[in-house]
Amino acid sequence: MKTVYNFGGDADYSDPRQKDKTVTGGKGANLAEMAGIGLPVPPGFTITTEESLSYLTRGEAFSDKLRADVAASLAHVERAVGKRFGDPEDPLLVSVRSGARVSMPGMMDTVLNLGLNDVTVEGLAANSGHSRFAWDSYRRFIQMYSDVVLELDHGLFEEALEIAKEDRGYFTDVEMEADDWQKLVGQFKTIVEQERGEPFPQDVHEQLWGAIAAVFESWESDRAKVYRRLNSIPAGWGTAVNVQAMVFGNMGETSATGVAFTRDPSTGERTYYGEWLVNAQGEDVVAGIRTPQYLTKARREAAGADLPSMEEAMPEAYGELARVFDLLETHYRDMQDIEFTVQQGKLWMLQTRSGKRTAKAALKMAVDMADEGLIDQETAILRVDPMALDQLLHPTLDPDAERDVLGKGLPASPGAASGKIVLDADTAELWSNRDESVILVRVETSPEDIHGMHAAKGILTARGGMTSHAAVVARGMGRPCVSGASAVSIKLDERTLRIGDREFKEGDIITLDGATGEIMAGQVPTIEPELAGDFGVLMDWADKHRRMGVRTNAETPDDCRTARGFGAEGIGLCRTEHMFFDAGRISAVRAMILADDESGRRAALHRLLPEQRGDFAEIFRTMTGLPCTIRLLDPPLHEFMPTRDEEFEELSESLSVGVDHLKRRAAELHEFNPMLGHRGCRLGITFPEIYEMQARAIFEAACEVTAEGGDPVVPEVMIPLVATRRELEILRELVDRVAEEVFTEQGRTLDYLVGTMIELPRAALMAGEIAQEARFFSFGTNDLTQTALGVSRDDAGRFLAPYVDKGIYAKDPFVSLDIDGVGQLVELAAERGRATTPDIKLGICGEHGGDPESIAFCEKVGLDYVSASPYRVPIARLAAAQAALRSAE
Amino acid sequence: MKTVYNFGGDADYSDPRQKDKTVTGGKGANLAEMAGIGLPVPPGFTITTEESLSYLTRGEAFSDKLRADVAASLAHVERAVGKRFGDPEDPLLVSVRSGARVSMPGMMDTVLNLGLNDVTVEGLAANSGHSRFAWDSYRRFIQMYSDVVLELDHGLFEEALEIAKEDRGYFTDVEMEADDWQKLVGQFKTIVEQERGEPFPQDVHEQLWGAIAAVFESWESDRAKVYRRLNSIPAGWGTAVNVQAMVFGNMGETSATGVAFTRDPSTGERTYYGEWLVNAQGEDVVAGIRTPQYLTKARREAAGADLPSMEEAMPEAYGELARVFDLLETHYRDMQDIEFTVQQGKLWMLQTRSGKRTAKAALKMAVDMADEGLIDQETAILRVDPMALDQLLHPTLDPDAERDVLGKGLPASPGAASGKIVLDADTAELWSNRDESVILVRVETSPEDIHGMHAAKGILTARGGMTSHAAVVARGMGRPCVSGASAVSIKLDERTLRIGDREFKEGDIITLDGATGEIMAGQVPTIEPELAGDFGVLMDWADKHRRMGVRTNAETPDDCRTARGFGAEGIGLCRTEHMFFDAGRISAVRAMILADDESGRRAALHRLLPEQRGDFAEIFRTMTGLPCTIRLLDPPLHEFMPTRDEEFEELSESLSVGVDHLKRRAAELHEFNPMLGHRGCRLGITFPEIYEMQARAIFEAACEVTAEGGDPVVPEVMIPLVATRRELEILRELVDRVAEEVFTEQGRTLDYLVGTMIELPRAALMAGEIAQEARFFSFGTNDLTQTALGVSRDDAGRFLAPYVDKGIYAKDPFVSLDIDGVGQLVELAAERGRATTPDIKLGICGEHGGDPESIAFCEKVGLDYVSASPYRVPIARLAAAQAALRSAE
Repeated sequence: MKTVYNFGGDADYSDPRQKDKTVTGGKGANLAEMAGIGLPVPPGFTITTEESLSYLTRGEAFSDKLRADVAASLAHVERAVGKRFGDPEDPLLVSVRSGARVSMPGMMDTVLNLGLNDVTVEGLAANSGHSRFAWDSYRRFIQMYSDVVLELDHGLFEEALEIAKEDRGYFTDVEMEADDWQKLVGQFKTIVEQERGEPFPQDVHEQLWGAIAAVFESWESDRAKVYRRLNSIPAGWGTAVNVQAMVFGNMGETSATGVAFTRDPSTGERTYYGEWLVNAQGEDVVAGIRTPQYLTKARREAAGADLPSMEEAMPEAYGELARVFDLLETHYRDMQDIEFTVQQGKLWMLQTRSGKRTAKAALKMAVDMADEGLIDQETAILRVDPMALDQLLHPTLDPDAERDVLGKGLPASPGAASGKIVLDADTAELWSNRDESVILVRVETSPEDIHGMHAAKGILTARGGMTSHAAVVARGMGRPCVSGASAVSIKLDERTLRIGDREFKEGDIITLDGATGEIMAGQVPTIEPELAGDFGVLMDWADKHRRMGVRTNAETPDDCRTARGFGAEGIGLCRTEHMFFDAGRISAVRAMILADDESGRRAALHRLLPEQRGDFAEIFRTMTGLPCTIRLLDPPLHEFMPTRDEEFEELSESLSVGVDHLKRRAAELHEFNPMLGHRGCRLGITFPEIYEMQARAIFEAACEVTAEGGDPVVPEVMIPLVATRRELEILRELVDRVAEEVFTEQGRTLDYLVGTMIELPRAALMAGEIAQEARFFSFGTNDLTQTALGVSRDDAGRFLAPYVDKGIYAKDPFVSLDIDGVGQLVELAAERGRATTPDIKLGICGEHGGDPESIAFCEKVGLDYVSASPYRVPIARLAAAQAALRSAE
Repeated sequence: MKTVYNFGGDADYSDPRQKDKTVTGGKGANLAEMAGIGLPVPPGFTITTEESLSYLTRGEAFSDKLRADVAASLAHVERAVGKRFGDPEDPLLVSVRSGARVSMPGMMDTVLNLGLNDVTVEGLAANSGHSRFAWDSYRRFIQMYSDVVLELDHGLFEEALEIAKEDRGYFTDVEMEADDWQKLVGQFKTIVEQERGEPFPQDVHEQLWGAIAAVFESWESDRAKVYRRLNSIPAGWGTAVNVQAMVFGNMGETSATGVAFTRDPSTGERTYYGEWLVNAQGEDVVAGIRTPQYLTKARREAAGADLPSMEEAMPEAYGELARVFDLLETHYRDMQDIEFTVQQGKLWMLQTRSGKRTAKAALKMAVDMADEGLIDQETAILRVDPMALDQLLHPTLDPDAERDVLGKGLPASPGAASGKIVLDADTAELWSNRDESVILVRVETSPEDIHGMHAAKGILTARGGMTSHAAVVARGMGRPCVSGASAVSIKLDERTLRIGDREFKEGDIITLDGATGEIMAGQVPTIEPELAGDFGVLMDWADKHRRMGVRTNAETPDDCRTARGFGAEGIGLCRTEHMFFDAGRISAVRAMILADDESGRRAALHRLLPEQRGDFAEIFRTMTGLPCTIRLLDPPLHEFMPTRDEEFEELSESLSVGVDHLKRRAAELHEFNPMLGHRGCRLGITFPEIYEMQARAIFEAACEVTAEGGDPVVPEVMIPLVATRRELEILRELVDRVAEEVFTEQGRTLDYLVGTMIELPRAALMAGEIAQEARFFSFGTNDLTQTALGVSRDDAGRFLAPYVDKGIYAKDPFVSLDIDGVGQLVELAAERGRATTPDIKLGICGEHGGDPESIAFCEKVGLDYVSASPYRVPIARLAAAQAALRSAE
């Protein structure tokens, strides 16, 4: 077996071991890959991982075979580059790097410019024509080598450099001249000799073997051992060593350096894109000290720039680069981000990797490459990050516009909007009706603010997390939202607002960027989204490849239309309580709550029935032909109670009941932990007349819409917060009874299902029993996360951020499902539910239904559908397709 | 195989099938059992279950063999009684009853007096000397037989009786004379003939076979089928039929009837105990129309009664009864509650069963019987209901005293107390310091009321359930408590109280009975508990037989002493937060909470350190040599914040911070669902300095007490509300670090453990991982129930009662562990925890640790100990012993 593999030059890649990273390490295998497809990679060689282990077991000694093989490989490099290692006239310089199977902190990193000594430095200076460059390279080499190979204290060298600059009155390294560096080299060598007891090695072969030994030994360093233990990496893997010829782009006017993309990373267009600099090193392009030049003539002319493009200035190297672009895309089948250097007219590739791109470019490239036949549809689908689609569906801020940033909150709902500050929902509605754009600013929002959130262009809250009420509702409505902006402080009585140290009045204009969480003063221009043809094409492909259905969480006809436009295949969660907050109804709702007995409740419910029926009819018309899951009333009743004195007084008049009585009733309804209180099906059990009214409204509306013709909807009546089979049994019987009554009255029978949310740990554990009463389960992973983790979403702000910072949770568990914990409950409930009722329909309607990682988990446990807020429907479609493709692999 | 089995008289019980209830049914087997040990049971016979099935499969026809066997058995009864069936002079009457393997609603119940007809009724009248009795018996027989055998409408007979009474101007049946009954019999027979189309059967054999057929056929009645389906009883079990001679205690002065206990059921003493009446029926003893007489001469004399005892009046029958008592105790090895009848000088046993008894009697009998050798220790342990011990440990109301009951709440903590009404905790403390007995009355209590609860003799709340704050704390302190008394309404501003329609002022005296939930006006005398020697004896036996340890939940030295006195083997839960509410400390606590940064918090914590150290030292001294589990701070910080304006003002002065600032901070700390908020280990993660102070206090106190000599305690530091391994890892490291610091400072090293509560579903699911950081798990089943079921204990009052009523939960899941749901989590966590850390110590410290059914579950899943509030420690010791004995079976 070979101990060393060559790459570059005329190397032969026929031995499959060379591209096997268990043999040549990650870096070595990659270099062989690039060189193997004909890229001009600086030549070099890789010593195998096996050799490192044999070196260590042999008691840190090189085998004769290795010494011979390295000598042969060095000759290969010399041949390929046309220089000799240690040549006093024109020396070959090399880099030495470690390269384990995976990238690993604790390993020796890099030694550059190896091969320099007191003699070869002069050759380099003469040959490059840059004396300063040569001496700077030499002092860098001594510094690096002393640090990583000789393990001397690097502080000593840094100190010497600082003193040298001080002595000369310099502030930066750039001011150091050739002879300054030369003098410093002398001092460095003295330091080495003092510290080490012997001089800095002048023999280039001794330098090389020293570096190789250092890489080998670093496998057994303490840091490497700790890292291996923490990451379960076996000590038996060993590390490879890569020795590679140095190339320099700063060797005069025939040298250059640059970065390039094989396609335009911001638009996705198929044009070469990049920047370069003549006579420069890689850092110069990035550092921005010199203005980089365009790569192509067309680009230069389009920009009206004077400095020549690479196409014009170095036509041969450019031609070679163009050939490389083609090679790369054909080989890697993706847009590549590359670094290159031209050394004295010769192109060298230093790195290639898949390039980062904007959402728009990702979409276009995926579709284009599939059309070009470069990739198949499946790959195109996997190529686009579903979350990136969010950018495409909302207006964004003009990236060129100026921003007067006041502060930052959480990027709670994407999109951008400007408008006048309003401090309450009623004002928001009022001003919006006057055709003014408004931004609703609240400490936090509550269900009572819904009409104001609808009226506003954007929502800003001082408190609450990514899954606070404001965030969830805003995402559902597609409104941009910045939440938890702690810099915001509201003085409601003065109708003013502080953001950081700036004061605003109600009516002043601000701008929100929901994608970054930034809050800006004044109006910042926005760009409307372009849903180009590529979007539709990719969505079609995704739909062909996904197994799970995608529904939406929606309760207004507007939201339903939006979601259907985005491809929703039904409603997975229609929250009926939002309908109760409507200004025209809240007094009937309050009358119901405050009624002293059942008959009083029934009278109030009788007033609500036609309203609810109207709501459902409108939704059923919009969703015609699709299933609609309607959840019966869920929140605790006190959420509907008035809180302000005016509201109590209004209610007192309309009900002819004293304010004191009302306040006492409201206080009686108060709960310490409403999340765990008298809500969900507990309302249905204790006040069955409420669920009866809702069931009647659903079935009457379904009959009404069916009577109008068109495909009937299939109502799926969902009972919330079930923990026991008996609860569901009682309420399923209630719904069935009402359905039968309505069907008899209407002379029409419709299909419908009764099922339940699985949103309590007990429900998940008892799913086998509960499934005896259920035609479907919908996982309410918001509440399931709250209860399983014992974390109130509304209160988590104070500790969830530090928790994620400390790695206690990898991500906010309300954003991405806690698969380890909550996931166990979902999986177990799915299994037990199916064991009892094999055809039970399983879906998810928590916020996680729009999160790609959570969707992948849903695919894994075999759910039938996910349900997401309208603007997340396309994300869910794509994520579901990706999950299906990945699980098929 | 026999179709009929005889009992009584000279019957032979050698066929084991006769005592097998699958053959002779529950009742038949029991009759054979009693008769078999020589009890004078009225003779009779049992037709086997097999015959009922064969009758039904044969198309409702009797086999010839059955007819012959029944005839033979009837002859046996006639012989035994000395009367003949259908004899016109002295007829044998029988009862016919069904008797399935288990008692079963829907089956034919009983026909009495079968054998009466127009002729035999005269014989009965002549022979008994009671014409009225005979005709009344006959009309009852017609009524019952027509109802259950002939299936005629029983309303017709009742109506005829009502008319008969009206016609005669009678108000009650008692006024009916012999000839009135005789006339009614005529009318009844007319009704039967009209309804049935043929006359009431006069042939006594036809009567008998009709009744037997009715029993057989009732096995296939709709009600029986429904019951079988609901209770999973196979149709193939069938039912037996029991035919038994009637006996009458009302046949003159040589007849009598009575009830008796083999020992005194209220004291447990070994004396015969009972009542009897000459010439009376069983109902007469119970109905209280005549004053029953004493059984023994000694009792009669002791009571100074005139009417003769049975011992004196019927020495022979009494002698026979005494022989029966001995037989019964020897056979059943338990105190028996019997019903007997003496018919014309002859004693008949109608029933025997294990007798109900007071807690005190249960204890004494169990110990006595074991001492007598009647039962073994194991049986003695199993004989006493652990919950009954509660009565013995608390004062009780004098049962003879008058009670002016005002209303009733939940029996939240046992015991009885009288005292002056006080409406707040400060007043309670103030008046108590003046040596007045007070009852603290609150809408509900909060941690701020603790000092008042300590000061009070009893606690009454208008809201809150069996596991509300008031209930839990009161049980822990051993104070009687009545909670959730909805009839109580408090007007704090007027310092008055309404209970139902009565008004009270602060200072008026009321009495609470925590065992029944009754609230009484004025002072009701109480009886102090006597912890007789039997108590200690039984507890010792229990301790020898239990596997699990029993610890206590306690945090004051008083509670610790009480618990240790009751046999606690350590502390399972010491809640440190209760110490923070102390008046002398709360300002330091508040200063800590309101501090703007860590250094401010540390300064305040520094003031608390010596106080906490003192608390722990005192507890460690009390619990010397035992393990003490101390839970670090758990509740949300805002619980410590002031709520009243005066408190804010006081705090504002002491901290020199504006009231507005304080109120804003308090509002910022407000949480929507504090139960799921910033509490438990989340405080330790975000404010590590709090847990550092507490850990330091624990270890310094442990060193201090150890330095004083005596057995050192083993502190077990418990981290609350853990959901992830990482939380515990971070905090375990913190505790270990502080321990090392303290041990270094003190020059002493002590054993200690760090472990965690398992009180969140996620913690249970992830127990395998969490166990890697834990030396013990303590199941916090209160919070685990809250989160698994999604039910806030404080808010459950409004729906939990209807839930239990509707059978949604069999019991209040906060009182008795929800084994189906929450139990799964406990079992799974125990398994997974042990799989990772085989020697992990497992305990329970929720309220369920004092509930016998929950304790049995803990035994089943193999927990190492249970921890209960001090007054529940004896209950837990006994319940743990019973659980161990039962699981060994």
